[in-house]
Amino acid sequence: MNAPFPAKPRIAIVGSGALGIYYGAYLARAGHDVHFLVRTGRAAVLARGLRVKTPTEKFQLKKVPVYGSTEEIGPCDLVLVALKATSNDALKKLLPPLLGPSTLLLTLQNGLGVEEPVAEVAGPDRVMGALCYIACERREPGVVECRFPGVMTIGKFGKPAGDRTHAVASMFTKAGVKCEAQDNLEEMRWRKLVWNVPFNGLAIAAGGVTTDVIMADDGLRTLARRLMEEVVETAAKFGHVIPRSFIDLQFERTAKMDAYRPSSLIDFEYGKELELEEIWGEPVRRAKSVGASVPRMEMLYWLIRHRLAARKNTKKKR
Amino acid sequence: MNAPFPAKPRIAIVGSGALGIYYGAYLARAGHDVHFLVRTGRAAVLARGLRVKTPTEKFQLKKVPVYGSTEEIGPCDLVLVALKATSNDALKKLLPPLLGPSTLLLTLQNGLGVEEPVAEVAGPDRVMGALCYIACERREPGVVECRFPGVMTIGKFGKPAGDRTHAVASMFTKAGVKCEAQDNLEEMRWRKLVWNVPFNGLAIAAGGVTTDVIMADDGLRTLARRLMEEVVETAAKFGHVIPRSFIDLQFERTAKMDAYRPSSLIDFEYGKELELEEIWGEPVRRAKSVGASVPRMEMLYWLIRHRLAARKNTKKKR
Repeated sequence: MNAPFPAKPRIAIVGSGALGIYYGAYLARAGHDVHFLVRTGRAAVLARGLRVKTPTEKFQLKKVPVYGSTEEIGPCDLVLVALKATSNDALKKLLPPLLGPSTLLLTLQNGLGVEEPVAEVAGPDRVMGALCYIACERREPGVVECRFPGVMTIGKFGKPAGDRTHAVASMFTKAGVKCEAQDNLEEMRWRKLVWNVPFNGLAIAAGGVTTDVIMADDGLRTLARRLMEEVVETAAKFGHVIPRSFIDLQFERTAKMDAYRPSSLIDFEYGKELELEEIWGEPVRRAKSVGASVPRMEMLYWLIRHRLAARKNTKKKR
Repeated sequence: MNAPFPAKPRIAIVGSGALGIYYGAYLARAGHDVHFLVRTGRAAVLARGLRVKTPTEKFQLKKVPVYGSTEEIGPCDLVLVALKATSNDALKKLLPPLLGPSTLLLTLQNGLGVEEPVAEVAGPDRVMGALCYIACERREPGVVECRFPGVMTIGKFGKPAGDRTHAVASMFTKAGVKCEAQDNLEEMRWRKLVWNVPFNGLAIAAGGVTTDVIMADDGLRTLARRLMEEVVETAAKFGHVIPRSFIDLQFERTAKMDAYRPSSLIDFEYGKELELEEIWGEPVRRAKSVGASVPRMEMLYWLIRHRLAARKNTKKKR
């Protein structure tokens, strides 16, 4: 039996990108005891605090507890892992100082295989994952602009949601971040990939295009559907039955999105790291491990991987 | 019974790009009666003639018969169709004035479905196709530089090579252009696609890369092999058995090519038309017509088609 999630939890936010700042700021504003690990731009955050802007509100937290290492933070009840998945190697050093006997960890990362690196360090039983349906960007250290707040769905790694998962979801919702607990985290991840694999991928592979361009091109739109079918068929092999109507729904929603620039494209164009392995590489490997045929997803993975490698080489040359 | 191919044929070259000028100049230099249709840069060709440079020789033809219309040329014994396939709509007007009772037509175009537009105008029985294994570029009107002369393989449309096909091949070889007649033109076209589909295609789709870049990237190289397998499997459905060793041979040869820039990439980067339908679109449609599975080839087709459309839109905006 695990200790119940405390009413006044001590919370660490590991990673000071858009998501870490956004969710941490909402929790802190609600009066929670939130501690931020900020490695880049710490002086700015210390001096000016945090600022959040959404389509409906705007707030500032003038003073927040900011740290340069997790040793300074010490053990917490909840750790939000808000690093880019590409920095997961750092978790081995970052997480241990934050762990107490009943610490929970919630990773906000996208794609597949993101709970595993947390579980390796902290053990699988206390790991949760979140799917963040949100569009926000960090403008400068501590400053986040959110165009679409959406919802957060959380679940337990490898198990149905328990009391503590529900308690964490409830804490977020009370703090102003719509959050629900679901029983099948892995299926939720596959469902999110149904959109992310084609649209984040084709946005890059088709030469840097927004979603409306993909929707307006017969070939690319059909290709997006084929890619979705590959994701759905692979998920089915893992026992996650995603109905075909879910694919239609994706297209209906995307048609309303206008010229949306998927997050991976933004990362790609700004020269930032992107979740190549979590969104495309790992799904392809899992598909192959169960004999699912994913020729297009694999091709997309290879094309994007090459583009990223070429971008790195170009940078080096400059 | 067809009349034999004459010893002193009257020859028309339709199209004054690299291939038309190159082959026409060799035939003219050998003393043949060659008539050039030159629509762009005619004044320059009239004034300075033709110049050809290869790795082993260099020659100039100071005066060549140059025309602005095929009506001025009149009926010939042999017509070389050296337009880009993307201009094939023009054949309906260009070819009829060149046709006599026993005129032969040889199209130099790349890809699949290039004999058909000639056959529609001139009838199928007198159409031949050529596969030009050559790397040459037009530097300016009438001036061609050839880096790799290679060979030309010709065959009859829909039939084994007959006496006249052999006579034409022999004429080329005697004029200094290595040429052989083969019995299965369609199979030769599929064989050429085994290389062209992946390497011309990925050079564009991977963001403008030379062959050595594709060869050095594990993913792209494997993808090139999968694309070749799709071409080979489709060809097999049409009765053309291309051995797997032919694929290995392509890789051996490509490994020796160093940083080769496929012709489609050159066209793409110079903003020229390229044989999208002949190299990718038509093979995909033929594959689908016989139930062959070509997911990667289709994806490549769609990606390139989008790139071309985007390039056009960008041009319009400028």
